[in-house]
Amino acid sequence: MDPLTRTEQTLAAAVAAVEVPGSPPRLGAAIRHAVFPRGARIRPRLCLSVARACGDDAPELANAAGAAIELLHCASLVHDDLPCFDDADIRRGKPSVHKAFGEPLAVLTGDAMIVMAFEIIARAGATHPARLAPVLLTIARSVGAPVGITAGQAWECEPAAVLRDYQRAKTGSLFVAATIAGAAAAGADPTPWQAVGEQIGEAYQVADDIRDAVADEAELGKPINQDIVHARPNAVHELGLNGAVERLQALVAGSMAAIPDCPGAGELQALIMSEAKRLKPKKLDLAAA
Amino acid sequence: MDPLTRTEQTLAAAVAAVEVPGSPPRLGAAIRHAVFPRGARIRPRLCLSVARACGDDAPELANAAGAAIELLHCASLVHDDLPCFDDADIRRGKPSVHKAFGEPLAVLTGDAMIVMAFEIIARAGATHPARLAPVLLTIARSVGAPVGITAGQAWECEPAAVLRDYQRAKTGSLFVAATIAGAAAAGADPTPWQAVGEQIGEAYQVADDIRDAVADEAELGKPINQDIVHARPNAVHELGLNGAVERLQALVAGSMAAIPDCPGAGELQALIMSEAKRLKPKKLDLAAA
Repeated sequence: MDPLTRTEQTLAAAVAAVEVPGSPPRLGAAIRHAVFPRGARIRPRLCLSVARACGDDAPELANAAGAAIELLHCASLVHDDLPCFDDADIRRGKPSVHKAFGEPLAVLTGDAMIVMAFEIIARAGATHPARLAPVLLTIARSVGAPVGITAGQAWECEPAAVLRDYQRAKTGSLFVAATIAGAAAAGADPTPWQAVGEQIGEAYQVADDIRDAVADEAELGKPINQDIVHARPNAVHELGLNGAVERLQALVAGSMAAIPDCPGAGELQALIMSEAKRLKPKKLDLAAA
Repeated sequence: MDPLTRTEQTLAAAVAAVEVPGSPPRLGAAIRHAVFPRGARIRPRLCLSVARACGDDAPELANAAGAAIELLHCASLVHDDLPCFDDADIRRGKPSVHKAFGEPLAVLTGDAMIVMAFEIIARAGATHPARLAPVLLTIARSVGAPVGITAGQAWECEPAAVLRDYQRAKTGSLFVAATIAGAAAAGADPTPWQAVGEQIGEAYQVADDIRDAVADEAELGKPINQDIVHARPNAVHELGLNGAVERLQALVAGSMAAIPDCPGAGELQALIMSEAKRLKPKKLDLAAA
């Protein structure tokens, strides 16, 4: 089964487990709203592609690791959209969770999704106890303090932040978790996969910065120029548009070069190439034409 | 070492691990603000008392389980105090986290503490892999959806809630987690400990309802009559003051009777008795005199 189908099935089961008698129905509905319909699911697809490249002998654990990373990503979007942060009314082309369900339930939805992420790993890891702690620690580290996405977001509450540190924590960490957890779930040495995740994560952030600066709102499905509005560090501001595009190309090439020799290398490189193409704003194609 | 000292040492180490170079300093400060100075720490003390009663042969895992439960409790208080929920300016007699650090950082502080809870269990469980999944699942279940404290809080966002279901999720679940995780961390059968946790949890909620109705603000260290202000279900409204006090006494007695025969039963009963005394508002003593 392909990584995307595996991810959707795992997420569908996790969300359905909340929508049971005795559970507050609006919480389940808000979690479903935050998780479906899907975005690109790039992080779990990356996680499962690495697991496949490493033999994929514990697919349930890899599925759980990928889905957990996606749940944590979606949870961070729900909280990022809150009025006290980006105050975003739309996300993936539909109302943000707090717009659709109110602010209290949006806070709780993010909280419940963080817990759900660790719960599905623990459940899948019960049959692979030796791999459970490494997978959990990798993912927890990528999302908490001091260096995970929560810390990355918290840099926005500091008087000053270094662009690279901020982006590494806010965006890069979850990509590094995806590659390392994919390898760890399959019982492989995760060491060589760190550099792959780091470069993909930074590439994704630079691509996001470029899109925030040049894409239009209909293409992006969310408000543009949010980094300027919120005075956040952004690679286009720091390097200029051409500099940012060059940096993005170098990172994509670097991530592919860092993939260790393994049977799944081709599939992974194809995933990276298709993502690099998807994330390039149409305006840049026109400018180059 | 006594349960309270063990808890404070474990929490101190967990918070210090966030306050490192490369971490956003205000996030670490806000986490410290949320965790220290301590409240009663009743949940981790209960967890460690049960672990001791069950032999306590993996004290690091029991310490982590207890501290994780306390972190999750503190995280829920940080989010409960937010303007979109209780809008509470004070907590434990000092400014709430959002008052001291702003609303965005308060959201992130709660998020980071939830992650930290699972991270410390995963770290301690690496040396007891067979016990890791049961401890994690017990604690995740008690704090997430569909029946944990997040779900309990989410019942406040529904048009109607059953008092017992609401309180069991919002408050009881973390007490049940404390007793079951304490037994599971020590490798014991957790089954008999469920009834102990359930009754202590319900007793604590009823005591809280009584205090919300009759204590004064200085004694409580937080605003009173919040259940009336927020139209939340409350045992005093449902049973009357005398009925609520009778219910509390029955629950305290029932929890002590449910403790299985074990060497630590006396210590645990003493803990329950001292808590029951501590939580009784002074006004009730005067009324009875």
